[in-house]
Amino acid sequence: MTAAVLCTGTELTRGELVNANGAFLAEALTALGFEVGAVDVVDDDAGRIVRALERLGNEHDVLVCTGGLGPTTDDLTSECVARVLGVPLERDEASLETIRARLERAGRTMASSNAKQADFPRGARILSNPNGTAPGFSVKLGRAAAFFLPGVPAEMRAMFSASVVPAIESLVADRSHQTLLRTFGLPESEVNDRLTGIEVAHGVTLGYRAKLPEIEVKVLARAQTRDEARERSEAAAREVRARLGDDVVYGEGDTSLPEVVCRLLEARSLTLAIAESCTGGLIAELVTNVPGASRSFLGGVVTYSNASKTELCGVSPALLEAHGAVSEEVARAMAEGARRRFGSKLSLAVTGIAGPDGGTAEKPVGLVHLAVTSDAGTTAKHTVFSGGRDVVRRRAAFAALALVRRVVRELTPAR
Amino acid sequence: MTAAVLCTGTELTRGELVNANGAFLAEALTALGFEVGAVDVVDDDAGRIVRALERLGNEHDVLVCTGGLGPTTDDLTSECVARVLGVPLERDEASLETIRARLERAGRTMASSNAKQADFPRGARILSNPNGTAPGFSVKLGRAAAFFLPGVPAEMRAMFSASVVPAIESLVADRSHQTLLRTFGLPESEVNDRLTGIEVAHGVTLGYRAKLPEIEVKVLARAQTRDEARERSEAAAREVRARLGDDVVYGEGDTSLPEVVCRLLEARSLTLAIAESCTGGLIAELVTNVPGASRSFLGGVVTYSNASKTELCGVSPALLEAHGAVSEEVARAMAEGARRRFGSKLSLAVTGIAGPDGGTAEKPVGLVHLAVTSDAGTTAKHTVFSGGRDVVRRRAAFAALALVRRVVRELTPAR
Repeated sequence: MTAAVLCTGTELTRGELVNANGAFLAEALTALGFEVGAVDVVDDDAGRIVRALERLGNEHDVLVCTGGLGPTTDDLTSECVARVLGVPLERDEASLETIRARLERAGRTMASSNAKQADFPRGARILSNPNGTAPGFSVKLGRAAAFFLPGVPAEMRAMFSASVVPAIESLVADRSHQTLLRTFGLPESEVNDRLTGIEVAHGVTLGYRAKLPEIEVKVLARAQTRDEARERSEAAAREVRARLGDDVVYGEGDTSLPEVVCRLLEARSLTLAIAESCTGGLIAELVTNVPGASRSFLGGVVTYSNASKTELCGVSPALLEAHGAVSEEVARAMAEGARRRFGSKLSLAVTGIAGPDGGTAEKPVGLVHLAVTSDAGTTAKHTVFSGGRDVVRRRAAFAALALVRRVVRELTPAR
Repeated sequence: MTAAVLCTGTELTRGELVNANGAFLAEALTALGFEVGAVDVVDDDAGRIVRALERLGNEHDVLVCTGGLGPTTDDLTSECVARVLGVPLERDEASLETIRARLERAGRTMASSNAKQADFPRGARILSNPNGTAPGFSVKLGRAAAFFLPGVPAEMRAMFSASVVPAIESLVADRSHQTLLRTFGLPESEVNDRLTGIEVAHGVTLGYRAKLPEIEVKVLARAQTRDEARERSEAAAREVRARLGDDVVYGEGDTSLPEVVCRLLEARSLTLAIAESCTGGLIAELVTNVPGASRSFLGGVVTYSNASKTELCGVSPALLEAHGAVSEEVARAMAEGARRRFGSKLSLAVTGIAGPDGGTAEKPVGLVHLAVTSDAGTTAKHTVFSGGRDVVRRRAAFAALALVRRVVRELTPAR
């Protein structure tokens, strides 16, 4: 079973937007078990849209199209589909009423351009759009079951789940289940090497996605029943966890590392303070982006100058003089100072050289010292990260959060 | 003159990556003056690649393809192009030598799979790749001048500029010039309304791109000579600036708002400290992501708890009690306290409710108080931002930086 995606719009052919709808649909169709052969974009040109519809409809079993359902003159999808099918457009009165009511609720009156959004090729099945004015529709187009959705991402995604998935999932004989494991701390090549043989042993497909600085591992199983697919995927995922270790595999699905750290701190009734130099607030930003972070995060300092390291974290000028701001000694002193200042159970400190300047032979760009202080004392570690300024900062921030997670887990072993 | 882009790779048809290469090439070809009719993606299937090449080569004047030039068995581009042209693949000894030398410098020996990267369709013009192993090539394919580049973004972009642009820019009779203005503070619809009539009056095309929380305005002019296009684009850009005002148009081209603020502070020998509550370190992170930020940014505090607002910024418990943490009074006190603490010329404070919880009728989610303190006193302002937690935080951070810019410009008017 092959599927294709067609996205229309000059905002895409002019490169004003990246085709996020295309990637979403490609991923969703792949997860359903389709082989996606094309993710095409055409501009708002009736001839090119018609040719693309004919071609993709003849080549694939499923075709999902986005865009061109709006009220303006460059919204051509319904018209083009009607041309390909050789049928007229017909107005759907029920859709017209829904559009009118929706506009009225927003305090607007319906223009004739909006009425056009209730015109569909004769014989089309209409797909309701709970989040916007433009309904979608589906038709048989050549070989393909073809679906036409609006280009607004939130509307498109909701309609894909509600209307397209139920209509096409039975086309794929096999059922699939995917487990997504989130890892941090090993390069992609090493993750790959460590997982050799799992695909064959468990009858699954492993997929890797580098989402800097993490590597996601997708464990996809297909089987005749959904339960069997889930079991196989989960068994293989346990093997992945065992081979990579729990320090590397920090979570599943949508959970982010900052979220895992916040939940862990909250579950153990621990509080955290952060002192950052080279990461410049990035770690605090990642932590506070988690809703409810205030239950465990007390606050942070960005001590970008030596004077502020002394003033805010109590790092002595003599220590800074003796070892330099980027040193294990200063990282430890910053962590201990932040803990005192905020009265937190735990504290984290980061000091390093993000670049592009400021490196020396002894302390190269990318060198980052981390320290975490708790009742059990202070744990320090350092790494030289590769990459540009923002990449070094991002890697350092994740390494710092991973160190907090490790220290907390060692303090109070998992129940 | 029409152009098309074809990107190959199952990582794209499986939706593991968004097609950023496609968007880059579409934008670059549009800026050169081509009408881009298609940005297509096919998987690593020889039949589908061949059909896409035939189709796009016959329909367009220029075709730029990415991907499929690597050493593995699913890298099929050269082979497919040779099939379409009906010519054999021939090994290019000079390319083979370059590949061998490059691998040796990296401490590796050349495998036969790498040697394949030196095979090109007979008659192809080879395009050198200074940043990677895989060279590209160009051929005439049907009607199109066709270019084949690697899928690695940095390699692809460098080769596009160095090899493709010089070969195709003469195909477009008109010369174009684009000025990109960066704006913050007005919604897209209002930017649009204020600029009504400029396109006709100046003979330019205006393009808008919402890059949350900014709106970019692209002023594209085409003319017979490059100079004329530049003059026309720049004249229209001056009119855009005049209509939106310098508080809204903060920069041109690649310059970010944090960068503009850092350069402005540095030029006026001012130093900055930041006290953040709801933005949780985001503003410090944006500022310190600018190389050289340490010349004007002294440091920041993330005072997420009331106790830390008192301990670090000297906000009195009575003030917090009387007005609440999210109030103009507390924002002012935080800014003034941070200025004292860091000894900076300027200080910025932000306190608000990012959500999703914590809002009340009087102080809704999205309410953010900002304050900037300088020798001239303290300027405060507040706004209710819409959007989810991360959107509110991002909008608040940009509003805060825009307020710093305004205060600095008022302190010391532009020379």
